[in-house]
Amino acid sequence: MTLAIGVDIGGTKIAAGLVSEAGEILDSVAEPTPSDATKIPAVVADLVDRLTGEEKAAGIGIGAAGFVGEDRSTVRFAPNIDWREEPLGQQVAALVDLTVVVENDANAAAWGEFRFGAGEDTDDLLLITVGTGIGGGIVHRGRLFRGGFGVAAEIGHMRIVPDGILCGCGQRGCYEQYGSGSALVRDARERVTNRDPGSEAIAALADGDLSRITGPGVTQLAQDGDPMSIDLLGDLGRWIGEGAAVLATILDPSVIAIGGGVAAARDLLLPHVIEAFETHLPARAHRPQAALRIAALGNEAGIIGAADLARTEPTTSRGVA
Amino acid sequence: MTLAIGVDIGGTKIAAGLVSEAGEILDSVAEPTPSDATKIPAVVADLVDRLTGEEKAAGIGIGAAGFVGEDRSTVRFAPNIDWREEPLGQQVAALVDLTVVVENDANAAAWGEFRFGAGEDTDDLLLITVGTGIGGGIVHRGRLFRGGFGVAAEIGHMRIVPDGILCGCGQRGCYEQYGSGSALVRDARERVTNRDPGSEAIAALADGDLSRITGPGVTQLAQDGDPMSIDLLGDLGRWIGEGAAVLATILDPSVIAIGGGVAAARDLLLPHVIEAFETHLPARAHRPQAALRIAALGNEAGIIGAADLARTEPTTSRGVA
Amino acid sequence: MTLAIGVDIGGTKIAAGLVSEAGEILDSVAEPTPSDATKIPAVVADLVDRLTGEEKAAGIGIGAAGFVGEDRSTVRFAPNIDWREEPLGQQVAALVDLTVVVENDANAAAWGEFRFGAGEDTDDLLLITVGTGIGGGIVHRGRLFRGGFGVAAEIGHMRIVPDGILCGCGQRGCYEQYGSGSALVRDARERVTNRDPGSEAIAALADGDLSRITGPGVTQLAQDGDPMSIDLLGDLGRWIGEGAAVLATILDPSVIAIGGGVAAARDLLLPHVIEAFETHLPARAHRPQAALRIAALGNEAGIIGAADLARTEPTTSRGVA
Amino acid sequence: MTLAIGVDIGGTKIAAGLVSEAGEILDSVAEPTPSDATKIPAVVADLVDRLTGEEKAAGIGIGAAGFVGEDRSTVRFAPNIDWREEPLGQQVAALVDLTVVVENDANAAAWGEFRFGAGEDTDDLLLITVGTGIGGGIVHRGRLFRGGFGVAAEIGHMRIVPDGILCGCGQRGCYEQYGSGSALVRDARERVTNRDPGSEAIAALADGDLSRITGPGVTQLAQDGDPMSIDLLGDLGRWIGEGAAVLATILDPSVIAIGGGVAAARDLLLPHVIEAFETHLPARAHRPQAALRIAALGNEAGIIGAADLARTEPTTSRGVA
Repeated sequence: MTLAIGVDIGGTKIAAGLVSEAGEILDSVAEPTPSDATKIPAVVADLVDRLTGEEKAAGIGIGAAGFVGEDRSTVRFAPNIDWREEPLGQQVAALVDLTVVVENDANAAAWGEFRFGAGEDTDDLLLITVGTGIGGGIVHRGRLFRGGFGVAAEIGHMRIVPDGILCGCGQRGCYEQYGSGSALVRDARERVTNRDPGSEAIAALADGDLSRITGPGVTQLAQDGDPMSIDLLGDLGRWIGEGAAVLATILDPSVIAIGGGVAAARDLLLPHVIEAFETHLPARAHRPQAALRIAALGNEAGIIGAADLARTEPTTSRGVA
Repeated sequence: MTLAIGVDIGGTKIAAGLVSEAGEILDSVAEPTPSDATKIPAVVADLVDRLTGEEKAAGIGIGAAGFVGEDRSTVRFAPNIDWREEPLGQQVAALVDLTVVVENDANAAAWGEFRFGAGEDTDDLLLITVGTGIGGGIVHRGRLFRGGFGVAAEIGHMRIVPDGILCGCGQRGCYEQYGSGSALVRDARERVTNRDPGSEAIAALADGDLSRITGPGVTQLAQDGDPMSIDLLGDLGRWIGEGAAVLATILDPSVIAIGGGVAAARDLLLPHVIEAFETHLPARAHRPQAALRIAALGNEAGIIGAADLARTEPTTSRGVA
Repeated sequence: MTLAIGVDIGGTKIAAGLVSEAGEILDSVAEPTPSDATKIPAVVADLVDRLTGEEKAAGIGIGAAGFVGEDRSTVRFAPNIDWREEPLGQQVAALVDLTVVVENDANAAAWGEFRFGAGEDTDDLLLITVGTGIGGGIVHRGRLFRGGFGVAAEIGHMRIVPDGILCGCGQRGCYEQYGSGSALVRDARERVTNRDPGSEAIAALADGDLSRITGPGVTQLAQDGDPMSIDLLGDLGRWIGEGAAVLATILDPSVIAIGGGVAAARDLLLPHVIEAFETHLPARAHRPQAALRIAALGNEAGIIGAADLARTEPTTSRGVA
Repeated sequence: MTLAIGVDIGGTKIAAGLVSEAGEILDSVAEPTPSDATKIPAVVADLVDRLTGEEKAAGIGIGAAGFVGEDRSTVRFAPNIDWREEPLGQQVAALVDLTVVVENDANAAAWGEFRFGAGEDTDDLLLITVGTGIGGGIVHRGRLFRGGFGVAAEIGHMRIVPDGILCGCGQRGCYEQYGSGSALVRDARERVTNRDPGSEAIAALADGDLSRITGPGVTQLAQDGDPMSIDLLGDLGRWIGEGAAVLATILDPSVIAIGGGVAAARDLLLPHVIEAFETHLPARAHRPQAALRIAALGNEAGIIGAADLARTEPTTSRGVA
């Protein structure tokens, strides 16, 4: 059996797993992300060492939030880590005797869902990962869609409201300002600040400190039956669904999977996503319609997908040995 | 030399051409589109006969406005022709001794531009065809992007304004309601109706009959220096560019070509497209940027591309012989 | 007791009533609106003759859809009747021995509601009349708010969506394109055309002919419990409420009354209006809030208000005698 | 000659002036606004003492940013000063032997412009004051329009973009997020951050520190011919004009004056305001049109107007003597 290693480099944590050909994580380790970005390759190499031991892995796949170049080694830009044109794949490959492939984290997760999760039965998958932001990954005809410069599927920054809410990216009206967990939290806080009728339960959650209002907190309230929290998740689902309809107009996927932390709300969210999607899909009476699903692999999609990419895709950065 | 035939079936005219391997149209013929859609295959077969004569063509590619199924033979739905789940490829193949492949017309044009036109130097092309509506075609890694059900790249119906202008597709705020030739004409007429200051030249064009205001007419006025017509083309360019920025966020093409009738305005349009594109592209300081160009093949892109698809893509519908 | 006559000139019907000082309609008559607009004064004069008989009225108030000049006699422009700078008040006064005052129909209705209806307990009323379009009337400190040129309170054409749905007025995104009975009907038809899930009951109403879908029909379905019809009225109510919040930001009325045909939906509509209003009112925690109510006088508000204006406001056009 | 005192209480400065019946400021004094809001009445009383000396003033008018109650003494809420239901008029009146009237600062400025400035020739004025935010004041038929609760004309918080930019008021898409000096500065900074082509001159202004980009700085660049700065002022003017068209649809003023700091840009701004206003005014071919002007009194409008209100309007809070 050929094993591969998947690594997920996030703003706060670097997680790695030893992944089987069947997409199972056999072992996993993690370390905090060092604040000095130049130390990241060494941390990754150390995690790889701890995972491999006697075993020999076929390669390393790294998923990282940011723009990854066509060489699949260089991180052009990352929003949360101080990387600019950073040859990450080469740096890691220089420390380990393995081939390394770097991919955008949402692309890696999409690949994982395509191979072993919500997209296992299709060749044309769109993954929408909804966490504090929105990420995306596209699989078309069984291949990852990377675009001409490696930065395709930055769907969180698709403009859905002209002159809309300002985004950290410098633009206005980006999808993730409406359809993400951060949007949910912001809206919940607004309701409390405005003392909107019905916001009492959320206000109680805050208890005078708005920072106590979190996505999981609102989701829990909704699960406990609080009408405004249910409404807020409904609003969130509608925005996600409206954006999904735009994406389907362009990409025509067979399956759209909703992943990320927000996916935990499941039945409080998905029906609203589907309703908004169906209502806003152009010419829907005349076309087959994508299946909308909650993603299957949870937080592990990125590690599983990155590992699999290292195994199935042509290598990019070769190790020292 | 292998020749192939490209056919472009429009709402008013069916045009066909004999196309060389180099993408040159060696001969061309056309007939009006019969109002009875069941007669279309016979008209196509007749045009093919007239083109082939002694020559033997390698195959027929047909571009048609509408949703074309994954089988690349069936037209699921066409906005201007009475087709619903019409097995067009099989119908034509039954009349001629050649393989037939059917493709969405904008997809065919994109393929033509990719092979012989504005995308000749890239593997990742987005074609935006701007006529009375907006169509689109995507080439990724040298292959046509069809989506899971064959209806990808329906970019004219991408929503760019929530609760925006009603579209014939039943939705609101579709790209083609803002960035097409029809939008240009509608806006020009509004200015005249509202007696906006500066609309005198356009009003003179109408001379009491708004239907005399056309896209080419406004473009001519702009070329003659009429400030409001220049402004209207600028507005049009901005909308096209803003939509292109959304598309680039999702698709990350290396080249974006602007085709269709509106492309004739060239320098009155393209700088505004580019400026709006650059202004609205997220994180543009951190990414390579697509080249924006006027398409190279004009109205012939569809015929050239369709013919080439018949030659280079696996056949779908086989002829009778 | 001083009686006065109120006249309501609509696109299809001219209705007139003999109105008491207490705002009661003692007698009423009506005639179809002549297609030749020049015959309207004669029809009005005839209706007045039939109403007055032995009684002597104090004056005539006429409400007409359109822009009424500061002289309160001239109709500058009417959307449904062929009037341009028409001296309507003088024309009627020339035929009857009574003073005549002309007012915009929604202004007249607002005055009626202020004097005898939903605004009886306030000095600061905003009336929003929601029928096929949206009209408005403002009473401030007990006086009708006419603006500098007599055309204030054209709230149906307040832009609430930039680049939004086209309006007959030549602009886009007007309030009445979202919050009127016509919008309700348009949306219901769209749902049927798009074959949206849940639209079966409305489709049954149409029975193949979309023109059978009407506002009262959808309201009846909603009252019978059809979920999509209930939703559509909810959407309508939300738009009305969002627009009302904009208006309250500018006008700060004490009472906002919702009149017009749509008001018949009452409890299916008003709670949504109120919720949207409260959610969208800026700084609502720090200000007294307008009371939102269904208007009290129904279709008679215009006649009652116009008659009262003739009695209580300085006269403009004096009769022949 | 009856003199009156006008006071303008801002977030950083309290300015007061002795104002003649002709609207001339004969003498003026100022002090920093104390951080402890309870000390404001004493500071005002001291300024009044310094101004009056031997002279006897007819009364004191105070303009303050915030919601002023119908009693014209109580400040219900102020965005920048810690006032909640503060009886400011009574507090000041308790310290001076004069009648005191409190008014919203933009209302006071509108009154000043109406009496002695840009609205001297009309009875129906709308003042739009464009500074860091947007304020407004309405004069109708020669009287100040206060609304039912005293908080009319909060036009800066009129929603002009649904789901638009978040505002400090808790809502989205408020006018002042698009048409104010803050919006100008924010947009200029975005251009630099995004490294937009043409933003070099503004970037030089920043010289690495975005906070150095200010409204006056951009205006100066525009006056020196920098194309992007000229464009940014054009954008600002368009937003102001579009909002003005909404306001005119509701209020139908004869004159609209643009005041506040941004008015200093004059010819770089006003033509764009007018063009956008005319383009967006509904049915403009059929109605008289408001004159758009730069306000005449500059920063002194509030003091002049407040003083005049103290003289011409019924008093509210009477002094101790």
